[in-house]
Amino acid sequence: MPKKRKLARGVAIAGAGMSKFGMFPDKNSKDLFAEAFGEMLTSVDKGLDPKDIDALYVGNFTNDFFVHQAHWGPIISDLIGLTPKPATRTEGACASSALAFREGVFAIASGFYDIVLVGGVEQMSKRTTEEVAEGLALATVPYEGEAGFTFPGVFGALATAYFAKYGAGREDLMNITVKSHNNAPLNPKAQFPLTIRDIMDARRKKLEQRGLPVPDWSDEKSFLSDPTVNPPVAWPLHLYDCCPISDGASCILLVAEELVRNFTDEPIFVAGIGQGSGRGLHASESLTSFEATRYAAQEAYGMAGIDADAIQFAEVHDCFSMAELIHVEDLGFFPQGQGYRAIAEGATALNGPIPINTSGGLKCKGHPVGATGTSQLFEIWTQLRGKAGKRQVPKDNLRIGAAHNLGGTGGTCTFTILERR
Amino acid sequence: MPKKRKLARGVAIAGAGMSKFGMFPDKNSKDLFAEAFGEMLTSVDKGLDPKDIDALYVGNFTNDFFVHQAHWGPIISDLIGLTPKPATRTEGACASSALAFREGVFAIASGFYDIVLVGGVEQMSKRTTEEVAEGLALATVPYEGEAGFTFPGVFGALATAYFAKYGAGREDLMNITVKSHNNAPLNPKAQFPLTIRDIMDARRKKLEQRGLPVPDWSDEKSFLSDPTVNPPVAWPLHLYDCCPISDGASCILLVAEELVRNFTDEPIFVAGIGQGSGRGLHASESLTSFEATRYAAQEAYGMAGIDADAIQFAEVHDCFSMAELIHVEDLGFFPQGQGYRAIAEGATALNGPIPINTSGGLKCKGHPVGATGTSQLFEIWTQLRGKAGKRQVPKDNLRIGAAHNLGGTGGTCTFTILERR
Repeated sequence: MPKKRKLARGVAIAGAGMSKFGMFPDKNSKDLFAEAFGEMLTSVDKGLDPKDIDALYVGNFTNDFFVHQAHWGPIISDLIGLTPKPATRTEGACASSALAFREGVFAIASGFYDIVLVGGVEQMSKRTTEEVAEGLALATVPYEGEAGFTFPGVFGALATAYFAKYGAGREDLMNITVKSHNNAPLNPKAQFPLTIRDIMDARRKKLEQRGLPVPDWSDEKSFLSDPTVNPPVAWPLHLYDCCPISDGASCILLVAEELVRNFTDEPIFVAGIGQGSGRGLHASESLTSFEATRYAAQEAYGMAGIDADAIQFAEVHDCFSMAELIHVEDLGFFPQGQGYRAIAEGATALNGPIPINTSGGLKCKGHPVGATGTSQLFEIWTQLRGKAGKRQVPKDNLRIGAAHNLGGTGGTCTFTILERR
Repeated sequence: MPKKRKLARGVAIAGAGMSKFGMFPDKNSKDLFAEAFGEMLTSVDKGLDPKDIDALYVGNFTNDFFVHQAHWGPIISDLIGLTPKPATRTEGACASSALAFREGVFAIASGFYDIVLVGGVEQMSKRTTEEVAEGLALATVPYEGEAGFTFPGVFGALATAYFAKYGAGREDLMNITVKSHNNAPLNPKAQFPLTIRDIMDARRKKLEQRGLPVPDWSDEKSFLSDPTVNPPVAWPLHLYDCCPISDGASCILLVAEELVRNFTDEPIFVAGIGQGSGRGLHASESLTSFEATRYAAQEAYGMAGIDADAIQFAEVHDCFSMAELIHVEDLGFFPQGQGYRAIAEGATALNGPIPINTSGGLKCKGHPVGATGTSQLFEIWTQLRGKAGKRQVPKDNLRIGAAHNLGGTGGTCTFTILERR
């Protein structure tokens, strides 16, 4: 259990932006970040002169591998006109930009800087699927790679363990997939803005047009049970349990609490930050829980002075449907082994008691790994300002949301609680 | 000119360690970090229970490329028994671990953590020289790589510009090489613990043993002028102007100022931190100065409330002899264009008015890129505690030293001022 920690100086969000997520062969990392940065600038209600930004943190997993270019701090700094101000890259696999966010919080809370831009970028679609798998494997611990584990393999093993321990099955994972796809069409930035029903209807129509027999897909689950539609990737995970390969960028403007109202009358405050590290699968005490997530959650709840019950909605790191199930339990939203039942009853739906991944999640919004952490916080910020449009969480007095970001096989986990005051 | 900045809470160094630097085909990154960590532990005068460390920052440039493994935070965390505490990798090319140091300072100054381990590691010798050159090029800005610039090419171009502008020549660079080699044998961690005279005498002896004619090497400079000894790499830079390929690790224990005397009666305090970013060669206003270094220096001097005259000795980033010459001017130790004359007069020698690279520098100590930043600070800390043995700076009241770390072609520069109080 971590000590109860606090920051010497409060930090708030004054603006945020993200690019559309997807596969964009004609865009590079700079194009993507520029798109996010431009939106951030227009989001700052009272305006921001970019010259007032003191420092930059950029999360990137491995553009080293994906596009053969490291050292992204100064490249992004130059792009947005910040040079010669400091620019630092953070890397924690798929949690890289959540780390950038945290370092930006520390840099302001330390008193050294007042206004810090944090964000992330990843450009993955220049590589083949096989190459992306090789690149992603750089984030696993060595033992896992040597044992032949890819990411779907790891999360498939966790699913098998969870099923055996708690009696869940593939249908429970489908509930998560269907829910994420229900949210995605409501998010204009999403890579796959389609419900499972949309996809099913389109497929049925195409078969009919070709005069081919149409299977008896009575509902989403029967559709997802059809192996011609949803083939296995790493049993029990199938194609629709897995997030896609994506390009994208996102960024957030952090400002010292006492200065933030110079930029916006609707600041969102950093109420809690937490981070933990993990050993990897081979050394985990449990295959149905991530120690790093639990540590990060306790650190963040401790700082915020709240517990899981106070979280009104969250983004969690659903690189696979199974991952979402583990996280909502590790974060304390549901007791261990009971999350899948609550999900089946709609607990995490947009109109449920604790909406999860209103953005569509990594599954549907996309997962440009270095950009994911700050894109999750972009979603929480958007919701807390009541500006999420059709996907707005339908709750009175929406005040506290949180984002959980996971890197590797639980090697790095963060949990960040945001609050409207 | 950066604003005058300060930290809300002081930070000090309670211990430090580094591995031997060199080419170690039988060691991996974990072996190297363990060596540095072990020495750090024994260096904490009053003892440290590693369980009291709150968080870890690890600088690494691109083990992604060098050993096909990213996400080093949790791997090092697991190695030293810190899991599940947070572990973050920073990357700023050859300045990666100076960034880790800075983030550790911010994390403590923010009030969130009290005791943070920072360090760096790089394992380069598993790759061929050609592959290392390809890996290092990941740190240049895209334009430079496309123009065919390698690192020796970039610094060769700077040397040409400097020579043309200020009238210096190859002999002035030799003064820097000879000086660094004079310091190296006094440093038991150095990769090349030999003076140029040592190397010359050994070569002479070998030729005599073989009955071959011995050239008329009257002194170090005539030896370094012999192209069979010191062939050109990228004119005017020759082999002995360039740092080697190295493996190594280093780490530093940072503690909140008010707690540090629980660990040592000889703490060394962080007096100033500075960081800047640069655009790369194609957009530089000057080829004989790095804007990022000047920005970093002003930030650090501003925080410390001192100017360059107060710095009693320094480590500067001599990836090439030419780089050292540019940095000692950018940092304000000598006026622009006059550094080479002062160096010729011995100003930067161990017994000179401002000793530079008492460790032997990157040239002789070695340059495992991710480990270099904290290894420079290890040297400053060692000197300020009066524990540098035969290479101890021979000054009464040695109180203020500084380290300058450069990443890429000036993309990331840091300047850190340490003080004994």
